[in-house]
Formats: sequence, structure tokens, C-alpha cells
Amino acid sequence: MKIALDAMGGDFGPPNLVAGAVMALREYRQIKKLYLVGDSAGIESELHEHQCNDSRIEIVHSTQVVEMSDRAWTAVRHKKDSSVSRAVDLVKRGQADAIVTAGHTGAAVAASMIKLRTLPGIDRPGIAAVLPTETNVFVLIDAGANIDARPEHLLQYAFMGSVYSRHVLGYKSPTVGLVSLGEEDVKGTEKTKEVFKMLKKSSLNFVGNIEGRHLFEDPVEVVVCDGFVGNVILKTCESIAVAIFKWLRHELDRSKWRMAGAYLARHAFKDIKNKTNYEEYGGSPLLGVNGICIIAHGASSPLAIKNALRVAAESIEQQVNPHIVEEIRRYNETTASLEPALR
Amino acid sequence: MKIALDAMGGDFGPPNLVAGAVMALREYRQIKKLYLVGDSAGIESELHEHQCNDSRIEIVHSTQVVEMSDRAWTAVRHKKDSSVSRAVDLVKRGQADAIVTAGHTGAAVAASMIKLRTLPGIDRPGIAAVLPTETNVFVLIDAGANIDARPEHLLQYAFMGSVYSRHVLGYKSPTVGLVSLGEEDVKGTEKTKEVFKMLKKSSLNFVGNIEGRHLFEDPVEVVVCDGFVGNVILKTCESIAVAIFKWLRHELDRSKWRMAGAYLARHAFKDIKNKTNYEEYGGSPLLGVNGICIIAHGASSPLAIKNALRVAAESIEQQVNPHIVEEIRRYNETTASLEPALR
Repeated sequence: MKIALDAMGGDFGPPNLVAGAVMALREYRQIKKLYLVGDSAGIESELHEHQCNDSRIEIVHSTQVVEMSDRAWTAVRHKKDSSVSRAVDLVKRGQADAIVTAGHTGAAVAASMIKLRTLPGIDRPGIAAVLPTETNVFVLIDAGANIDARPEHLLQYAFMGSVYSRHVLGYKSPTVGLVSLGEEDVKGTEKTKEVFKMLKKSSLNFVGNIEGRHLFEDPVEVVVCDGFVGNVILKTCESIAVAIFKWLRHELDRSKWRMAGAYLARHAFKDIKNKTNYEEYGGSPLLGVNGICIIAHGASSPLAIKNALRVAAESIEQQVNPHIVEEIRRYNETTASLEPALR
Repeated sequence: MKIALDAMGGDFGPPNLVAGAVMALREYRQIKKLYLVGDSAGIESELHEHQCNDSRIEIVHSTQVVEMSDRAWTAVRHKKDSSVSRAVDLVKRGQADAIVTAGHTGAAVAASMIKLRTLPGIDRPGIAAVLPTETNVFVLIDAGANIDARPEHLLQYAFMGSVYSRHVLGYKSPTVGLVSLGEEDVKGTEKTKEVFKMLKKSSLNFVGNIEGRHLFEDPVEVVVCDGFVGNVILKTCESIAVAIFKWLRHELDRSKWRMAGAYLARHAFKDIKNKTNYEEYGGSPLLGVNGICIIAHGASSPLAIKNALRVAAESIEQQVNPHIVEEIRRYNETTASLEPALR
């Protein structure tokens, strides 16, 4: 398999990205070619730093970078030679099977939509973030691709999340919940109420509205919301887990007894910290585009980039896109005679 | 001071509400009168259960209850004799200084808006939830009163949250952040971008857009967002804190060494659990109405209700409403000559 890594995007640029790429190449033999897209001098110098001359690496020089302050669509239209655009081009031309980027999420989404197009039956792609609870793993879709989502987009997210949960995470009949303000049908915005009706009529295992508290206390397998809300949930979860452990560390350091206790219990802390550490998850697939695009965290460490490349490799093996197309086709066929179709 | 408690609302009805009221009366001598509004037979039976014949209690009989499945505005219009409406009536007539309810949030907001009206210069009230971090305490506004907020509502929330942070929490110049998808000005929805511009021009200590991760890692004092997003943040925070501690408990029980460690460090866990336990906070003020209304959690325990009554008592003492009116008046005066006023 061949993967294109946007080697410029992200808060830390080439150093973390190249370091992650080097780690991934050492660990994942199934990667046969890794394109590093960006400023070739910068990339080469980082590779030199790591004494890496792996023949599977091919540097693709590009002269521009989408900055975090750029507007997504404008950046894709005007910065034709940006690292993210060039990386997506490699997938478009069939030279790479997947792209990984830790750069401007909006630009990655726009470039993928413009160059790869969406899958048949899908209007807008959504980011599927995978989050752990004590008892299961759930898919949060959309985690930030589409902040002005229409009701039909949310319905499509429910289908895509469900397919992902079944085919990648192994849940037979994943439960689907819609993020709202209360469990009752009448709660929520005009938009969520409309989505509620659509989901209720669908063949999905829809359990109804869920509130933030259901995410972790009595979790469902697929959590559906628009990209603004999803991004807030994702970032809040990451933040609060980090904050609680830091806080706990501080409290544990306040006496000798507590410190001794913390030492004895250290593996328990480590187990949970590892499970809640987003670096272990690496990246989230942008579902709904005709190709594979993995969105990594802007602040990705080398470990997170390595794992994002792992997610890309897994996505290439798993090929969920045909399943998404099939599910949506079947839904549209069933509803076509009854009511206006999905799109 | 006199407080009206909606004794029917909430997931557990009179048992928890009356138990909380009894606890509050024992602890807070400053409460001179506590109206318990709802089904008198049910309330009396609960009081009997607690062997409570405190002369400060006055039962106000009402025959209806707003159910969680009711639509907020319809419920207030049609269920004239609901416990929440009757409780708000007591404040409207000056018989009570504040209302506390754990019932249908939308109905409490609607009843307060209809009967008490909003403060001069305020279009829509917002719930100000107070949340702890390791280093400070922040106000999240709106935590669920107004799910279809317009930009000017969010600006008003920023002012109200700021006044609350100064006058109640004691921050001299509280920092204000706007929940968005990234720190850059260009990130967010059309709505948040408009609010960003308004906040930047205001006299508030506005630090810009914040993401979920800034809530706890590098927190601001006032977090501004619409009621949908705010409610999701609030419920997610509650949920994840509970889930992490449950998870930790489970991990700590997995070996004798870990259990011994947990025992030695037990006070550290307890300190944080208490600080993150919403029951200790009890209730959140609905800011912007011409009166005092405290919204308690639907699933409130007696302890949470006791603390919601404490919050009501504190709010009566602190009287933030005149400060809100003054701040908004000053803002409107300053901007009136420059641009269209706040409302």
C-alpha cells in the first residue's frame, strides 16, 4: 500500500511529521511507499536527523503551506501547490491509496471534496472520531468537517458511522444516538427534531436522542451530531481527561502517604491514561469522500503521526467505502417510493 | 429571605426535593420562608416521613406538573396550575425572592420570561453554569436556556457571565472566550464569526476563540456559547468525570497492590471527586430575567437540591441583576453613537 503524508501541516511542522513517518516505516512493513509532501529541503534535513534512508520514502516537493489562519476553500483554490493539495492529488491520480494530514482540517476536507469528490449518495463528508469508554468504543461523527450541516447530512453520518462501527470496530448492530438536549422526541433544535424523525424511520438501530452524559455513562456505538458540536465534544473529552490526570497527580503529590499509594497503583493510572490518550488513536477517517483521508490532530506528536499512518493502513485494508455506498443505495431505494429520497 | 421550590419537577419528584428542602432548612437559617409548590398531599407525606414540621415551610398546592415530554412554551401557556408556573408566580407577586426548580428547563425558562420578563437590555436569558478546573472556576453561559441564540444574545451572555464572574466569583477582570472550532478569527460558523467581531469591539476582556481543550487546560473565566453547545459541554463534562473515576475504581480493584495504593491515596481521589461533583454546585442561575431563578439538575439528589437552595440564598444576597443592567446600559450608550445598539 502507498500513503501520502502532508509533511508540512500541523502545529509542529516537519519535525514531528517526519519523526512519526520514520517510526511508522520501522513498524509497518505493509507500507510499501510513503510520499512525504512538502518542502523537500526541510524534509530531507529531518530525515537526515533521523539517519533514515528508507527506500520506501519518496519526497514530493511543494512550495506552499495552508496556514491555520487561511480560509479553507480559498486556500485550496489559490494555493494550488500546497502540501495538502499535492498529497490529495497523489490519491486522485491513483499513485497513493490514502492521505494523512495534521494540517488545517477545513482545507483537507475542501481539497478532498474538490479533488476526490464525495461517494454516490453522500452530500458532505464527516470526520469519524473513535473514542473509548470503559465498556465500549464509539464513533463520533461528524467531529469537525461540516459545521453547517443540514438534516440529510446528519442522516448520512448516521449511516456512515454505522457502517464504520460494523465493518471496522466489529459491532453487529451498533446503536445510534443523536446528540440533543434531552432524551424526549420534542427536545432539541428544529434541525435535530427533523433528523430524529428521519432516523426513526430508517433501518438503523436508532435509540433516540442522547445527552452528553450518555456518551460515557450508558454509551451508544454511533454518536451523530454536526461538526461544530462534534468538534466541541471531541476537544472537551481530550481536555478533561488530561486535566483530571494532571489534577490527580497534583493531589497525589500532596503527602507521603498519597505518593506511596500512587506508586502502588501506578499501573492502573497508566492503563487508563493510555486508553484515553488521543495519540494512541492517531487520526480519524474523513468518511464520505471517494478515497481515504485521515485527519490527525493539529498538535500531533510523532507517536500520534505514527498511529495516524497505522489508521491509514488499516483503512486501506478495510475498504469501508463500498459498504457505505451500498447502505445508502439501499436506503434510497427503500424510501424512494415512500417519500423524497435522501438527496 | 423567601424561596419558592418547585417540589414536583425533576426525575425523582417530591421525595428528593422535599428531602433536600429539609436539609437546607436545617443548615441555612437565613431562609425565613420556604414555599413548597406542588401536590400538597404528596409534599405533606414526604415532610411527615422526615418528621419535619418547620414553621418556615408553607405548602402551595398546585394540581399540574410539566412533564419532560411537554413542549416548553405550550406547557406554560396551557398548564396554568403547574408547580413551576405557581412557583414563578410567587416571585412575580413579591412573595418569594427566588425560585428553585429541577424540572423541565425549557418550561422554567419560558415561565420566567413570560411572568418575570427579561432585564432591560437583555433579549434572552441564559443559564450560567459554574465549573471547576484545577486552577480556577469558570462560568459557562448559556448552558441550555436558548438553543437558537442569535449573535446579540451571545454578546449579552458575555456581559452577564462577566458580571457574574466579577461580582460572585471575585475575578477582577475575567477573561472571556468564545467557543469555536479553532483559535483563529476565521474559524467557526457565520454566527460565531459575527459574535467574535462584536466581542472584540466591546470593553470585555475578550481573549478570542477557544476550543474545548481550552476549557480545562488553559482556562478562561467566562465561556460563551449557545445553549445547545453549552448543554452538550456541561453534560459531557459531568459524564466524563464520573466515568473516569468509575473506570479508575475498576482498574484499582484489579490487584491487591493497586487496592492498597488506592487506600493510601483515598483522600486525593475524594478531594477531586467532591470538587467535580455537580451535586456540590446544586444549581445554576438563569441570568437575564428580572428576578432570581435557579435551575437544578433533573437528576438532583437531596444534597444537590440542598445546594441549589444555597445558591438561591447566595443569589438573593449578591443581587447581580442591577450590575447586569448597568453594564449593558453602559455598552449600549457607548456603541449607540457608533453603530446599531445591542438590541
